[in-house]
Amino acid sequence: MSLRDRWHVPAALLSPVRAVPLVFAVFILLGTGLLLLPWCHDPGASVSFMQAFFTATSAVTVTGLATVDIGSHFSWPGQLVILLLAEFGGIGIILVATTLGVLVGGRIGLRMKLASQTDLHVTGLGQVGPLFRRILLTTLFFQGVTAIILVVRYRMTYFDRFTTAAWHGIFDSVMAFNNAGLSLQPTGLAAYAADPIIVLTITFAVLFGTVGFPVLAELRDRWRRPDTWTIHTRLTVWGSLLLVAIGWVLFLWFEWTNAGTIGAQSVPHKIMTGLEGSVMPRSGGLATFNWGDVRPETMLVTVAMMLIGGGSASTAGGIKVTTFFLLAYVVLAEIRGDEQVRIGRRAISAQTIRTALSIALIGVALAVGGTLALLLLSDSTLPDAAFEATSAFGTTGLSTGLTPHLSIPAQLVVIALMFVGRVGTITAASAFAMRRRKSRFRLPEEQPIIG
Amino acid sequence: MSLRDRWHVPAALLSPVRAVPLVFAVFILLGTGLLLLPWCHDPGASVSFMQAFFTATSAVTVTGLATVDIGSHFSWPGQLVILLLAEFGGIGIILVATTLGVLVGGRIGLRMKLASQTDLHVTGLGQVGPLFRRILLTTLFFQGVTAIILVVRYRMTYFDRFTTAAWHGIFDSVMAFNNAGLSLQPTGLAAYAADPIIVLTITFAVLFGTVGFPVLAELRDRWRRPDTWTIHTRLTVWGSLLLVAIGWVLFLWFEWTNAGTIGAQSVPHKIMTGLEGSVMPRSGGLATFNWGDVRPETMLVTVAMMLIGGGSASTAGGIKVTTFFLLAYVVLAEIRGDEQVRIGRRAISAQTIRTALSIALIGVALAVGGTLALLLLSDSTLPDAAFEATSAFGTTGLSTGLTPHLSIPAQLVVIALMFVGRVGTITAASAFAMRRRKSRFRLPEEQPIIG
Ligand SMILES: [K+]
Ligand SMILES: [K+]
Repeated sequence: MSLRDRWHVPAALLSPVRAVPLVFAVFILLGTGLLLLPWCHDPGASVSFMQAFFTATSAVTVTGLATVDIGSHFSWPGQLVILLLAEFGGIGIILVATTLGVLVGGRIGLRMKLASQTDLHVTGLGQVGPLFRRILLTTLFFQGVTAIILVVRYRMTYFDRFTTAAWHGIFDSVMAFNNAGLSLQPTGLAAYAADPIIVLTITFAVLFGTVGFPVLAELRDRWRRPDTWTIHTRLTVWGSLLLVAIGWVLFLWFEWTNAGTIGAQSVPHKIMTGLEGSVMPRSGGLATFNWGDVRPETMLVTVAMMLIGGGSASTAGGIKVTTFFLLAYVVLAEIRGDEQVRIGRRAISAQTIRTALSIALIGVALAVGGTLALLLLSDSTLPDAAFEATSAFGTTGLSTGLTPHLSIPAQLVVIALMFVGRVGTITAASAFAMRRRKSRFRLPEEQPIIG
Repeated sequence: MSLRDRWHVPAALLSPVRAVPLVFAVFILLGTGLLLLPWCHDPGASVSFMQAFFTATSAVTVTGLATVDIGSHFSWPGQLVILLLAEFGGIGIILVATTLGVLVGGRIGLRMKLASQTDLHVTGLGQVGPLFRRILLTTLFFQGVTAIILVVRYRMTYFDRFTTAAWHGIFDSVMAFNNAGLSLQPTGLAAYAADPIIVLTITFAVLFGTVGFPVLAELRDRWRRPDTWTIHTRLTVWGSLLLVAIGWVLFLWFEWTNAGTIGAQSVPHKIMTGLEGSVMPRSGGLATFNWGDVRPETMLVTVAMMLIGGGSASTAGGIKVTTFFLLAYVVLAEIRGDEQVRIGRRAISAQTIRTALSIALIGVALAVGGTLALLLLSDSTLPDAAFEATSAFGTTGLSTGLTPHLSIPAQLVVIALMFVGRVGTITAASAFAMRRRKSRFRLPEEQPIIG
């Protein structure tokens, strides 16, 4: 007798593709409820339903947009709830999908196994169990190292009490690796803007979080032999490094003399802030400066970076690095006139191209639609609305300062974008793969004129 | 002995794919030279090299962006030069490609024939000659009807002298059908804003120009039997109507109470201006109101419309209606889980999808890159720069008012965007098709994780 029969669980719920949005929704509502409890509030603060709902969604979707200051509105139990929601939303959801796959895997056979593995992005059968352990250990390792560095530094330089330093260090390490973007400080990382130990530790924790578990696992085993990497790992690693480099150079170029951001900083400080300005849009969401003060050039590049996001099956959002570079390879193949789209010594199927194209176009449509909705529902400029909507869809959490000024309907739009951004990128590709069906007959082809 | 041998024409020049950019460049330089001649200037005006170069490029690429007022800077011979440049850039270039194809078609065989036909977007062999005649007659018909209506109305209501009325009517009819966007009036169509005869005549002339010759030809023969239309004609006709309807409704919704645009107009007047606001971005480029005064919502939708543009092998620019809707069908097929991408009872090949994807992504990259360049090289806001760059790439010609304030390097960026926008959309898809080669070996496929 399988677990499913014994527990009378409806089959639909056991499909990870359908279960993930449901589990997300349950956790958001649970989080909202908990954050509304009086013992979660700071004694002097009141928290409305919308504030709790927005904060819970932002935490579970690991976005980091905030309509209230977390540090001053929530007591430590409230902050703990937020930490747990972000930990669940970043890596927990991947474990849940794994667990569902393991629980029902024995009975439902290959189709479900394949589905759950597409969900988890595992490339071979029978790896679900070890992957579970591996994800936990990877997370523990990165969050542990980050937390230790931060706690020591916070205690030495910023906080007199060890418990305060420890709490800030643990909270920030969880937010960093989960790309959750929330901060206990009212001004985010700005309190530590000139401290390379803290800024660089958090920046690198964010960066490792954006890589994604399948790639981290492959790198652990084969980091010395890039020639043996899968196409997925190659695209993710080299693509991410290229994006970080491009973002870094452009940020420094555009902002070098901008007094509102890095204009007044020393050269080494500028270079450090530039790295942060390149890494955080994809999609860490923490900032030592006010993104509302960047130049329009930087804004445009940052919106593009937020839309691209991080690696697949990572704590980052966006359409994903592989999706973006795969499409770039398609254009390249088309310009060169190649029959197959080739990456290294492997070809990419027409089906994979279709999926990448669909994910990218849906992402762009959601960002544009979200921008339009924010313009209609709030008093905002076009760049601010585009930045906010893309930040929500990409679960980035950066803002030019618009978030606290959003009307309630506009807040609901942002909540929907964050939800679709996090849930969609985990489930859309799997859903596409599951729904694919051989048709009984093939239609003849006809070629419309393109361009 | 073929014409090619007798004239010693290098083979490379006879390839329409390579010849089109060259012919465009020659005409722009020729136009620049002519516009610099004193007898082309209004007695009281001086015209600099950059002004002549910009105007000639804008005319040949049928864009309509202008750094000077055409009516007051150029004498009637100068205006005639501009008219001829636009007539060449809109429909002449298609005739040139046809002629090249016919001249060399007999000798170079199927490959070149196919290339020239891809260029012309003719779907069967042996239609090049009749097509030539057909394009000329179609143009004559639409421009003739438009000119007659305009001349009569101009004489009746706006100009005392028949010659002035005739010249304005002919000029405006050529600009309208060629989607060339230039105007003899300093404020464009604003002088006739409340005149439905003129506004509607010009709007419909623009609309017919955006459809494209292959579709106009098919419609002439089979407009009563939509079930016999090719996929190309279906996508273009229904897609264009859908885009016009969406643009119309959104324009009216967003601008209804905007005192800067249609807020003070009567309801019928609003509805007429709304149609203009929907048709002109794709890519007529004429306006009865100031696009710098529209709301940010309208701006965002208009940038998208300018990027999409009109039909293939038409006088409009952009990535084209078929490209856009084909990609929408890909996303739809992916969501529905269809193995083939189907439109009606026909399937679309993976190769066509790759071409459409490439054209769209290159278009977006050029618009974004152009926006970035304009921000760096001119003092502009992000929305104004995005509007201007997309308008140039889409050879639309609408502007929020930035054009006369562009620095010379920024003007060169706009010139490059207009050139690539017009030449690229005529030649890129053909170039892709010509360069395609069977590879000697096929690589094994590998699937990266998408999304
Ligand atoms: K985030
Ligand atoms: K135009």
